[in-house]
Amino acid sequence: MTTSTQTPAGAPRDREQALRTRYDAIAARRLALDMTRGKPCPEQLDLSLGMLELRDYRAADGTDCRNYGVVEGLPEARRLFAELLEVEPAEVIVGGNSSLALMHDAIVQALLIGTPDAPPWQRQAPIAFLCPTPGYDRHFAICERFGIRMVPVAMDEHGPDMDEVERLVEDAAVKGIWCVPRYSNPTGITFADAVVERLARMPTAAPDFRIFWDNAYAVHHLVPRPQPLKNMLRECRAAGHPDRPLTFTSTSKISFAGAGLAAMAASATNVRHVVGGVSIQTIGHDKLNQLRHVRFFRDAAGVAAHMQKHAAILKPKFDAVQDILERELGGTGVAEWSRPEGGYFISLDTLDGCASKVVAMANAAGVKLTAAGATFPHGKDPRDRNIRLAPSLPGLDEIRQAMELVAIAIQLVSLERQRA
Amino acid sequence: MTTSTQTPAGAPRDREQALRTRYDAIAARRLALDMTRGKPCPEQLDLSLGMLELRDYRAADGTDCRNYGVVEGLPEARRLFAELLEVEPAEVIVGGNSSLALMHDAIVQALLIGTPDAPPWQRQAPIAFLCPTPGYDRHFAICERFGIRMVPVAMDEHGPDMDEVERLVEDAAVKGIWCVPRYSNPTGITFADAVVERLARMPTAAPDFRIFWDNAYAVHHLVPRPQPLKNMLRECRAAGHPDRPLTFTSTSKISFAGAGLAAMAASATNVRHVVGGVSIQTIGHDKLNQLRHVRFFRDAAGVAAHMQKHAAILKPKFDAVQDILERELGGTGVAEWSRPEGGYFISLDTLDGCASKVVAMANAAGVKLTAAGATFPHGKDPRDRNIRLAPSLPGLDEIRQAMELVAIAIQLVSLERQRA
Repeated sequence: MTTSTQTPAGAPRDREQALRTRYDAIAARRLALDMTRGKPCPEQLDLSLGMLELRDYRAADGTDCRNYGVVEGLPEARRLFAELLEVEPAEVIVGGNSSLALMHDAIVQALLIGTPDAPPWQRQAPIAFLCPTPGYDRHFAICERFGIRMVPVAMDEHGPDMDEVERLVEDAAVKGIWCVPRYSNPTGITFADAVVERLARMPTAAPDFRIFWDNAYAVHHLVPRPQPLKNMLRECRAAGHPDRPLTFTSTSKISFAGAGLAAMAASATNVRHVVGGVSIQTIGHDKLNQLRHVRFFRDAAGVAAHMQKHAAILKPKFDAVQDILERELGGTGVAEWSRPEGGYFISLDTLDGCASKVVAMANAAGVKLTAAGATFPHGKDPRDRNIRLAPSLPGLDEIRQAMELVAIAIQLVSLERQRA
Repeated sequence: MTTSTQTPAGAPRDREQALRTRYDAIAARRLALDMTRGKPCPEQLDLSLGMLELRDYRAADGTDCRNYGVVEGLPEARRLFAELLEVEPAEVIVGGNSSLALMHDAIVQALLIGTPDAPPWQRQAPIAFLCPTPGYDRHFAICERFGIRMVPVAMDEHGPDMDEVERLVEDAAVKGIWCVPRYSNPTGITFADAVVERLARMPTAAPDFRIFWDNAYAVHHLVPRPQPLKNMLRECRAAGHPDRPLTFTSTSKISFAGAGLAAMAASATNVRHVVGGVSIQTIGHDKLNQLRHVRFFRDAAGVAAHMQKHAAILKPKFDAVQDILERELGGTGVAEWSRPEGGYFISLDTLDGCASKVVAMANAAGVKLTAAGATFPHGKDPRDRNIRLAPSLPGLDEIRQAMELVAIAIQLVSLERQRA
């Protein structure tokens, strides 16, 4: 078997043969590895088991959390999220277990009822959302479901191309932009101050333009000194557009994925508007689960300490991916990839036209990757080059095997492409 | 103070004065009693505290309930609801903590996306729902929010007036009917077999007509031999309208109100359609809470045994209401009221034009009742006579005081009305 020190300078056919031999050897192990979704691993979930010890059902203000009511969320839960998001408790609504549902429902309400600023989007149809790409497939799926046209916008290491964004929002049909501003999914970048400021300040033709600020990875650092992120709610208020942003976050990757808490932060006007809609939809969300979280984490410092434990589990996996990518592909020119300081993904770009084949080759050898194109609207990557790597779920050794296979597949597909 | 054996044959002014004296005496106690909503009392909530002991997080099929996924609900949770609702597990979707949210979201999806049978309701607007009255204010609020015209339909002890319903559904704009078929909120009746059959069989002009079968009180019996309720899903299938019904239920009044489980049962076609929409809205609902419920209750027999404990707490309260109403108002002709065998409410009708005043008088003396008109669309009771009594929350002694006050208020307001 060829070692990984095979130089690109070796004869192409020999090199290709060596890669195929390695590929076949890994495939023969009959792996069944899932690197498709950003799921925490069981070891991470163990970190929060203490939360299940809760016997209390009385909130600090005396509310019996076993009974109906309190549609905006327990005051102490709102306080916790307010501290995490650096806003006021009155600017927070605590939801159920899903921030995606809060985003989805905000769009549904805007479509059917409208916003404080304008009539229902249904009546203003057709409408569009700006979609910085590569981005998050579940955001795009919402737009697709409701017939909202998606306009891809290029991203660089600072965030979305703001010249392009500012041009596009001159169209009153453009009602929103999807942003994952910290450890963006999948590019891993954190929006630069200048980007946050321009998003907050830019004039928009639509008075009901909304920034969907999905801060899903707000505290999910892998390094001790994270790049700061400007506070969008504060920036928008200072810019005279206080109702522009809707901030979302979730404890799914802090406590339990699908059994945590979601929250939205927004201006008082937007909170009032959203509560109006939520009050028709439900009598309230699960306050026992809110109590579990506030008692277990206590405050932002408690969350930060907990996140360090997550980082201790995740960082070696991310480092392993970097090591193998560098070792196998460094200097070859056939791939570029992100080096995120937090979040759940590494974004890799192959040569144009190679991503689908790479994903298929990996699949065939037992390593499932996020579908090629998933990071673009309608599942269509115009350059068929982006692959989202999600290393959180498998164990360290499995990741090494999976990444070796992926790197081999990239090289094989690239060789084919370069011959064509 | 006059005793309650004061006969109507006593001089009216004396009688009125005696009632006023009693009213003032109770008002002087500065009560603060809430009989507005059907909330379980703390003693009832205590019954489920054992559920919080759960340490398990692995479902029977090995699913780690702390992680993402399983959008239709854990198989064992679907089995539990299937047994309770007498359907197949494949016909069940387990939701979050709110059946109201399942109903709300089903209507939102029908408005924006449509049903398997027809285009979006938004494109067919204006549309209407049939609203048997007196009914449930939160159902009506959904219709009001989304501009769905509400058509009140009279109810008797068998259910809605089916001659009227069958006439009204000849209009293709009529897309739905709200039903609380067991221990109806607030009338307390259970739909008769003939009503269930006619609802299932009737032709409807709208191919996408839906029965919103809100079986909120499916197992909430106060008597040992409850009146049976025909299975709507089965009836509709037999009638060749398998996709007509959407059944909903909740454990809010079984386990914890606002921290339980909600479920929907429907045809396989409808389940597929709803799952399609739910999958865009969320990655899944709280499986840890689903596991808590299945482990604690085990099966329908476990739920039934638990409900007997609820009944032991509730029945004395309902009996107390009946006793006082009978004692104070029996034979006076100024009020009629239900004698439910289950559920959470007693429905009382005053003389026409008296309900608002009665509620105001009770409020003024410290007894909060559900707002007059709440049981009708847009909060408008055309005869201003219906009052919904919710005796579950307060203690037994408080209920007696509250009901004495209510009965006095009814008599005082009736005297006034009869003089007018």
